[in-house]
Amino acid sequence: MKIISENVSFDGVQGVYSQTSKITGTDMTFAVYVPPQAAHAPCPVVWYLSGLTCSHANVMEKGEYRRAASELGLIVVCPDTSPRGDDVADEVGNWQMGKGAGFYLDATEAPWAQHYQMYSYITQELPMVIAANFRADMGRQGIFGHSMGGHGALTIALKNPERYKSCSAFAPIVNPMEADWSVPAFEKYLGNDRAAWRPYDACALIEDGAHFPEFLIDQGVADSFLHKGLMPWKLEEAVKGTGIGLVLNMRERYDHSYYFISTFMADHLKWHAERLA
Amino acid sequence: MKIISENVSFDGVQGVYSQTSKITGTDMTFAVYVPPQAAHAPCPVVWYLSGLTCSHANVMEKGEYRRAASELGLIVVCPDTSPRGDDVADEVGNWQMGKGAGFYLDATEAPWAQHYQMYSYITQELPMVIAANFRADMGRQGIFGHSMGGHGALTIALKNPERYKSCSAFAPIVNPMEADWSVPAFEKYLGNDRAAWRPYDACALIEDGAHFPEFLIDQGVADSFLHKGLMPWKLEEAVKGTGIGLVLNMRERYDHSYYFISTFMADHLKWHAERLA
Repeated sequence: MKIISENVSFDGVQGVYSQTSKITGTDMTFAVYVPPQAAHAPCPVVWYLSGLTCSHANVMEKGEYRRAASELGLIVVCPDTSPRGDDVADEVGNWQMGKGAGFYLDATEAPWAQHYQMYSYITQELPMVIAANFRADMGRQGIFGHSMGGHGALTIALKNPERYKSCSAFAPIVNPMEADWSVPAFEKYLGNDRAAWRPYDACALIEDGAHFPEFLIDQGVADSFLHKGLMPWKLEEAVKGTGIGLVLNMRERYDHSYYFISTFMADHLKWHAERLA
Repeated sequence: MKIISENVSFDGVQGVYSQTSKITGTDMTFAVYVPPQAAHAPCPVVWYLSGLTCSHANVMEKGEYRRAASELGLIVVCPDTSPRGDDVADEVGNWQMGKGAGFYLDATEAPWAQHYQMYSYITQELPMVIAANFRADMGRQGIFGHSMGGHGALTIALKNPERYKSCSAFAPIVNPMEADWSVPAFEKYLGNDRAAWRPYDACALIEDGAHFPEFLIDQGVADSFLHKGLMPWKLEEAVKGTGIGLVLNMRERYDHSYYFISTFMADHLKWHAERLA
């Protein structure tokens, strides 16, 4: 692991690091905030997965998570959203496919399968890097994210409920198999057999029997992607009768931006801290 | 005044606006956060002046001031640091002069004097724009800033103590007449007569009899500019015996970045709110 930068903030350390990933076959950059409590004991880890077009840096700069993470004693890990590099397949000019749009899945179709293995990278390789290099209590992990990253958090939690004890999302894509900005990407990454898409769709996973104790979701009512891409009511429908809890806060006047995310960031970290205590 | 963007955040509105300035002769962009309390009554105004290379956007994205401003009911105004535009004089490649480096002074030397009139813009024209367009109580104003903007806040407060009821700074340039990054700029903006520099130097202003009730300053001990450019002990020396109060917090491990600023942002806004109540 290579240190790119480390800055003291809210009495902890905000770092940016990189590591050569065997799974993606590329160098991967990620941000880790370590709270002051880690000087005394291992701290719980909360994973934040970002949305389309983002790198590790957007939420690190605009998400305003450090005050709450410092108070609550949480390590916050912010991975990139795709492999990067000149030899990584991409669709230049299409922000919904390729670099910045990994959708937290393991691609099976050429040319994407060579590097786009974000599901395995996030769930297998990066946790080992975190465990090896930080004072992290890997027995206490939570996961959350925004938009495409909310999709990532929900699906990863549903497939690994034994590992993640808490899950929340800001404006998640709950049903990417039906949303107009993800269907073309799923076709290219996973092929035309829609059965292969279901492990990467929160609503389909729940329909197929996956379980998780409860989700917290905040969604802006003034979000321009609400009706075509996000549609949280589909998740509300999916969890009915399953015993999966869902706290869905519809926030009047809020949009899809970091101005929205940062407003409710402390609420989400508190949700995680309570479940990781 | 033209609206560039408005986003709801922490129950208030973060806006970006522009206006054609008669004083600088250019279009000027600025950010204004209006807290929810402004729906019921005019709110105090706190001015945040940014440092070298910054525009209005840096602190808006990374400064993390909205949570505290929303709680405390403060309007926060973040101006740009210089005039902008293709016809504005500049030294390309020199980040300490020209665009992004207006030093909050009224230049007297050619070619700078034509547009670089940031002191008058900040103290005369922009306040009228704010008063006309926002629910602002202009009888209750405070001012703060970072680095070059800390210099701006201190000197503007010292010259206008009747208007600004509170002043604070993060890592300010307290004595730009002696700091290596500002002497060449002052020569170009103001000429070789150092008497003309004194109204733009906090230590010199105090030496010449300017007064202000008290300043709050936070300074990182790990700030790489501390010993050559910032030197807060010079201000400590200058205020001795003047009755000017100075709370100077030297913060171990903190550097010059927004990771430092955001950490102490809420403390500073509280300082202002108490004095603007």
